[in-house]
Amino acid sequence: MTIAAINSRNQFKGQVVAVHRGSVVSEIEVETAAGIVSAVITTSSVDRLPLRVGDDVLAVFKATEVLVAKLSERA
Amino acid sequence: MTIAAINSRNQFKGQVVAVHRGSVVSEIEVETAAGIVSAVITTSSVDRLPLRVGDDVLAVFKATEVLVAKLSERA
Amino acid sequence: MTIAAINSRNQFKGQVVAVHRGSVVSEIEVETAAGIVSAVITTSSVDRLPLRVGDDVLAVFKATEVLVAKLSERA
Amino acid sequence: MTIAAINSRNQFKGQVVAVHRGSVVSEIEVETAAGIVSAVITTSSVDRLPLRVGDDVLAVFKATEVLVAKLSERA
Amino acid sequence: MTIAAINSRNQFKGQVVAVHRGSVVSEIEVETAAGIVSAVITTSSVDRLPLRVGDDVLAVFKATEVLVAKLSERA
Amino acid sequence: MTIAAINSRNQFKGQVVAVHRGSVVSEIEVETAAGIVSAVITTSSVDRLPLRVGDDVLAVFKATEVLVAKLSERA
Repeated sequence: MTIAAINSRNQFKGQVVAVHRGSVVSEIEVETAAGIVSAVITTSSVDRLPLRVGDDVLAVFKATEVLVAKLSERA
Repeated sequence: MTIAAINSRNQFKGQVVAVHRGSVVSEIEVETAAGIVSAVITTSSVDRLPLRVGDDVLAVFKATEVLVAKLSERA
Repeated sequence: MTIAAINSRNQFKGQVVAVHRGSVVSEIEVETAAGIVSAVITTSSVDRLPLRVGDDVLAVFKATEVLVAKLSERA
Repeated sequence: MTIAAINSRNQFKGQVVAVHRGSVVSEIEVETAAGIVSAVITTSSVDRLPLRVGDDVLAVFKATEVLVAKLSERA
Repeated sequence: MTIAAINSRNQFKGQVVAVHRGSVVSEIEVETAAGIVSAVITTSSVDRLPLRVGDDVLAVFKATEVLVAKLSERA
Repeated sequence: MTIAAINSRNQFKGQVVAVHRGSVVSEIEVETAAGIVSAVITTSSVDRLPLRVGDDVLAVFKATEVLVAKLSERA
């Protein structure tokens, strides 16, 4: 079964540079053009994919999950 | 009341380049170093901040909201 | 660029049976083995994929987004 | 205080078949008509409800949390 | 089918004081002890429950959805 | 860089009263006017801000993350 496209427009290509394993969830650091994107996913998923440092990945997140913070003039 | 810092590590600085208004929610496009980040927020928030094209902003999203998609070898 | 796998274990295969278009977001109904799964995505994504009634899709959602409601004995 | 209904249309009835405890969050596996739905909730909630293997539950998730992945023709 | 309890600890009791209808999603304002909690849900859910001004409700949100912003000393 | 405002209308001021540390995520309890709001954030964020018991904070969550549960007449 091959995925042709995902609806979410926010997709950042990058490489896994760190996997911080926990018993239930793990933090994955993905190096992208805009810097590190951090993802928390289940450790069972890390083992199932599997995900390892060096893998080419997409960091994907929905627009409804994004907050917008306005910066003050002195930004 | 000034916010010193937000917990979420995923914070991408950029500029609002488009506001697509809807009656209840609006889609905001933020131009960042990694390209466009799309956010869907309530239109009442757009008017309350207010948010306009040209504003300096942060696009913020939690690590728990990020999915990781593994790319196949032919990526 | 081909996606080999997505971390989220919650992936339900199905067919798009309805697209309720809005100006900014649209509601997509996916008929799966367990009944209808409803998704709200940006209308720009509906047009970009594109998504239409009859398409074979996966409805994907992270474990961290799932609430568990306990049913009383008389369930 | 009794809950008559929850807004989210995505409600899948099932039975808890596994609880993977962690110090802060736990992964709950719910066997539903469409297979296993995985939920990550706080371990304090697991103890407070309490949630145990065999419990009748609903796995609930909002439409805004669902991504739609289009499958390629060879799906 | 009666719901005995929901895992999420963040449950704020209140009354619906406004429903801003949109074609696909609607914004619901709930007056709680801590002020207004705003929810965006599908308009199909508003009609299905149904939800009207004056209804006694719970505003429920998962701990994983909450960001924590540290306030500066001059807060 | 100073944040002037965040889009999310759901912002509850309070004080950190507990930090339950885990290896990857931690649960933060914030005492607000409406009682305890629970947040699960990455432990790396707890150390980076840093967040400690007694800190003045805002608990922030998007309207799209809120579910509305209707209470039955006998509520």
